[in-house]
Amino acid sequence: MDKEAFVGCYDFEVEPFQEDFTGRLSWGVLGNLLLRCASLHATTHGFGYNRVEDDAYAWVLSRMVVELDEMPRTGERFTLETWVASLYRLFTDRLYALRAADGHPIGYALTIWALIDKQTRRPADLEKLADERFRRVLVEGRACPVTAPGRIRVKHGVPAMTYTAHYTDIDINGHFNSIRYIELILNLFPQALYATHGISRLEVAYSVEAMCGDELTLYTEEKAPGVTAVEICKRVGEREEVAVRAEITFKPYEKDKE
Amino acid sequence: MDKEAFVGCYDFEVEPFQEDFTGRLSWGVLGNLLLRCASLHATTHGFGYNRVEDDAYAWVLSRMVVELDEMPRTGERFTLETWVASLYRLFTDRLYALRAADGHPIGYALTIWALIDKQTRRPADLEKLADERFRRVLVEGRACPVTAPGRIRVKHGVPAMTYTAHYTDIDINGHFNSIRYIELILNLFPQALYATHGISRLEVAYSVEAMCGDELTLYTEEKAPGVTAVEICKRVGEREEVAVRAEITFKPYEKDKE
Repeated sequence: MDKEAFVGCYDFEVEPFQEDFTGRLSWGVLGNLLLRCASLHATTHGFGYNRVEDDAYAWVLSRMVVELDEMPRTGERFTLETWVASLYRLFTDRLYALRAADGHPIGYALTIWALIDKQTRRPADLEKLADERFRRVLVEGRACPVTAPGRIRVKHGVPAMTYTAHYTDIDINGHFNSIRYIELILNLFPQALYATHGISRLEVAYSVEAMCGDELTLYTEEKAPGVTAVEICKRVGEREEVAVRAEITFKPYEKDKE
Repeated sequence: MDKEAFVGCYDFEVEPFQEDFTGRLSWGVLGNLLLRCASLHATTHGFGYNRVEDDAYAWVLSRMVVELDEMPRTGERFTLETWVASLYRLFTDRLYALRAADGHPIGYALTIWALIDKQTRRPADLEKLADERFRRVLVEGRACPVTAPGRIRVKHGVPAMTYTAHYTDIDINGHFNSIRYIELILNLFPQALYATHGISRLEVAYSVEAMCGDELTLYTEEKAPGVTAVEICKRVGEREEVAVRAEITFKPYEKDKE
């Protein structure tokens, strides 16, 4: 069977109220669409949330890297392609290509997922799962030129921001929404920066889950011009535990394209 | 022409990552869909954002009342119907019906909009606008049984919450997003309340616009059991100006339906 048949293609249009103040698709909406396409694609091929839930498992996002040349604007159409590229014992890599209406690639994304046993909260062994539903959809070698995720460390100085998790931040699993973390990270930077700069790369590593009421503290460290590392910690008694590590890279917009 | 032809009908399904922790469509997503349907319907009939923008005007939401019997759950289909019910000099009423997959109504909404001159920031006289594009689509007398919006007053005591407006809160007009205000209001209440109660009525009145960096302070006053009035104020020098007034009503879920 043609491996391209296992690539999910989802068409979207940037609709009013999905954009940021510059008229570009917001990162919050893009992040949700990446998750939604993962869910749709997995459901199509028999390992979606509902199917897995019957088996008492749930997919949990562990890492995400998104690299973008440009972000579509209000009214523009775009396509998200997604496929499962590899399968380890405890993790699976899901890749994405983002294409403009004329088909040229405008970005790529790499996500790493674990399948968690909802009772024990431990990851399942993906290689031992009974049937072949995971392995048969693998699409190997399809281009997704993103820089692999690295090891993010942040020296803790003065907190850059604090935030208390509330009802609207919580997802159906009872945890702080993966995409809301990204919004918190974006909100570390002033509006004026977004008028002249886009985010060319965003890497996020999810560790400990935060719950409603948790106090989150964000620490930042500039790693290079335009590159900032971020840690989001939650308070556990007297200690702080790292919930999320991230690295965000800004790039000035090319003036002749504006 | 049959007036029903001027009712816009938009079908949706509650997709994964659009729900709250109870598995019901989140109010944030519902609010955005109400605005999106307004935009789609107005564009279809020639008075949408793009068309109006050519005329140097923009639609601004002034009031919203949503009354719901039930909220659709993940995987369930629902339909939003919307129509323009009346036209005053400075305002127009847009109504909505929300229907479950089997067609039975599960909620209604009333919204009031003004058309703002983007240069002067003053509302346009809708009755004097050159062509008949507004008046010809009016659908009068179609049922939308919501309690009309009232006058909301809140005694200022201890602030219930403070919030600083950030990048991801700002819409394409450069203002604090209308729906994000609703999320702030929802976040005044504990997660445990949402496990057993739904919001049966939400009324929001938008006054002064907030910008990125504005400090918002939320005040609340219980008006009756389950009914809370909210004011969101922004600091302007030494004073506080009311940006939003709202009233939110909670109703316990019927246990036999759960």
